Amino acid sequence: MITSVTNQKVKRIVQLNKKAAAREEENVFVAEGIKMFLEAPPEYLKEIYVSESLLKQLEGGADLSVAEKLKRFTYEVVSNQVFQKMSDTRTPQGILCVVKRLTYTLEQMAEGKENPLFLILESLQDPGNLGTIIRTGECAGISGLILSKDTVDIYNPKTIRSTMGAIYRLPFLYTEDLRGILQIMKAKGIAIYASHLKGRLSYDKACCTKAAAFLIGNEGNGLTEETTALADERIKIPMAGQAESLNAGVAAALLMYEAARQRQWKGTKGWKG
Amino acid sequence: MITSVTNQKVKRIVQLNKKAAAREEENVFVAEGIKMFLEAPPEYLKEIYVSESLLKQLEGGADLSVAEKLKRFTYEVVSNQVFQKMSDTRTPQGILCVVKRLTYTLEQMAEGKENPLFLILESLQDPGNLGTIIRTGECAGISGLILSKDTVDIYNPKTIRSTMGAIYRLPFLYTEDLRGILQIMKAKGIAIYASHLKGRLSYDKACCTKAAAFLIGNEGNGLTEETTALADERIKIPMAGQAESLNAGVAAALLMYEAARQRQWKGTKGWKG
Repeated sequence: MITSVTNQKVKRIVQLNKKAAAREEENVFVAEGIKMFLEAPPEYLKEIYVSESLLKQLEGGADLSVAEKLKRFTYEVVSNQVFQKMSDTRTPQGILCVVKRLTYTLEQMAEGKENPLFLILESLQDPGNLGTIIRTGECAGISGLILSKDTVDIYNPKTIRSTMGAIYRLPFLYTEDLRGILQIMKAKGIAIYASHLKGRLSYDKACCTKAAAFLIGNEGNGLTEETTALADERIKIPMAGQAESLNAGVAAALLMYEAARQRQWKGTKGWKG
Repeated sequence: MITSVTNQKVKRIVQLNKKAAAREEENVFVAEGIKMFLEAPPEYLKEIYVSESLLKQLEGGADLSVAEKLKRFTYEVVSNQVFQKMSDTRTPQGILCVVKRLTYTLEQMAEGKENPLFLILESLQDPGNLGTIIRTGECAGISGLILSKDTVDIYNPKTIRSTMGAIYRLPFLYTEDLRGILQIMKAKGIAIYASHLKGRLSYDKACCTKAAAFLIGNEGNGLTEETTALADERIKIPMAGQAESLNAGVAAALLMYEAARQRQWKGTKGWKG
C-alpha cells in the first residue's frame, strides 16, 4: 500500500491531473470515480488506484460490479490521505484510473453512416461545458465531435467527469486546421450551419436530415468571422427576454437534439415512433 | 476605504455568500461581477462594494456603463485583499452588491398570459445547473419557475452567477407544498408533463401550445413517485448510446425550447417567422 504523498506514482498522477502537457506526453488521461472506472474499455485501462477505505467496503460486499471488474486487473491500494492527494475532487469515491487515449479520424466518424451529423467547437473554454456537450452528443446520437486546437483540453479532469462516461464512446478529434476540415466536409456535401447571434434562419428551420455539421464558438466571443464565412448558413436560436446568449452547452444540446428530432430519432434506443 | 478583513461588513458578506440561513434572515442575496451589478434593478440594490483596483480603472475611463451607474448610488471602496476575501470567485471582477430578494406568486407568473408555461424542479441539487436553467428559462420565454423546498438555494452565489442576470427577470417561487401547487395547476387546466426515464411519450409529441408545465427531478434520482403520479403524462427525451441520462440543465432546456418551438417563438425577440 502506498502511504506517502511524496511517492513517485502519486506525484505523477497529480501532474497528469494538473497538466495537459504531461497527459499528452504519456498519451493518457486520468478517469476518476466508480462510473468512470466501470465504463472504461478494459483494453485502454493502464493503471488503477483504489483507496484503503473503498477496498474495505468492497471486501465487505459493497459495489459488486466494481469488485468484479477489479478482479480482472492489477491495481494499487493507497491510503485515504494519499488518495485525497491524487484526487481532483473534494469528496473522492476512492478509485481512479489511468486510461490510454482513444483516437479517431474523420473517416472513422462518418464510416457506415448515410447522413453523419457532426458538432464542431471553436475555442470553447469551459471544461464543464465541454463535458456536458460530450454527454449530450452521445445521447443525441451524433457521429462525432471536432474541436479546434485552442478548445479546452478534453482530458481535463473536470471535462472527463462531466462526460459521465461518454468520453469512452463519442468519437472526437482535435484539429490544427479547422479551415481545412471544413473544406473537406463541404466537398463531401455536408451542410455546415454556424450558430450565430446574427443568424437569420431559426435552427428548427435548418434542414438536418441530410449530412450536417453545427459550428459553435467560444462562450464569450462566439465564432470567428473566418470560420463563420466557411459555413453554408448562419443559424440562430430564438431568444426571449434580455439575455445576451445561451450557455454554450445548452446551445449545442438544442442544435443536436433538433437534428435528432428531424431525423425522427433514428438510431436512438428510446424511439417508439 | 475598508482595508481590514476583520471589518464587520466584510465578515457579513462572507456569511451571506456562505450561508443560506444568513441570506434568508436578511431577505437579500449577494450578486457579484460587472454584469450582475449592471443588470440589478436599481430599487433592489441595497449595498455596493468596489475594489480599489476597479475604482482606479473606472477613474481611468474603463467600463463607462459601470462608472455611470455607480454615480447614482453610494458605495463602499475596499482594498483588493479585502475584496478577494469577500468574493466567492478566484478571479473577482472587483464589484459586488447586496440585492433585496424579488418575490413572486403563481398568480403573478400567469397574469396576462393566455397559455402560461412553467418549469417545476423537484430536489435539484447542483447550483450551476439551477443557474443555467434560469438563464435558459428566460431565453425560452417561460412564465415562471417553481422549486420544491429542498431544491438547492437559488441565492447560492454560484447559481446567481450562472444565471448571467436572468435571476432579476425570471419569476420564480419556492414551495413547501409541491403537491398543493400541482393540484392548483391541474384545476386551472395546466397540462403537467413529468420528465421521466420511463416515459413513453417523446417530449416533441407532447402538446405544449396550451398552458403547460414540465416537471424535472433530482440529478441522481429523478422525480419522486408521488410527484410523478400527479402529472398528466410521463414524457421522455429519446437517447442514443449507453448514457443513463442527460444533464438536468440540458433536459430542462430541451423541454422548454420544444414548447417555445411549438408556440412558434411567440414573444421571442428573435422570431422572424
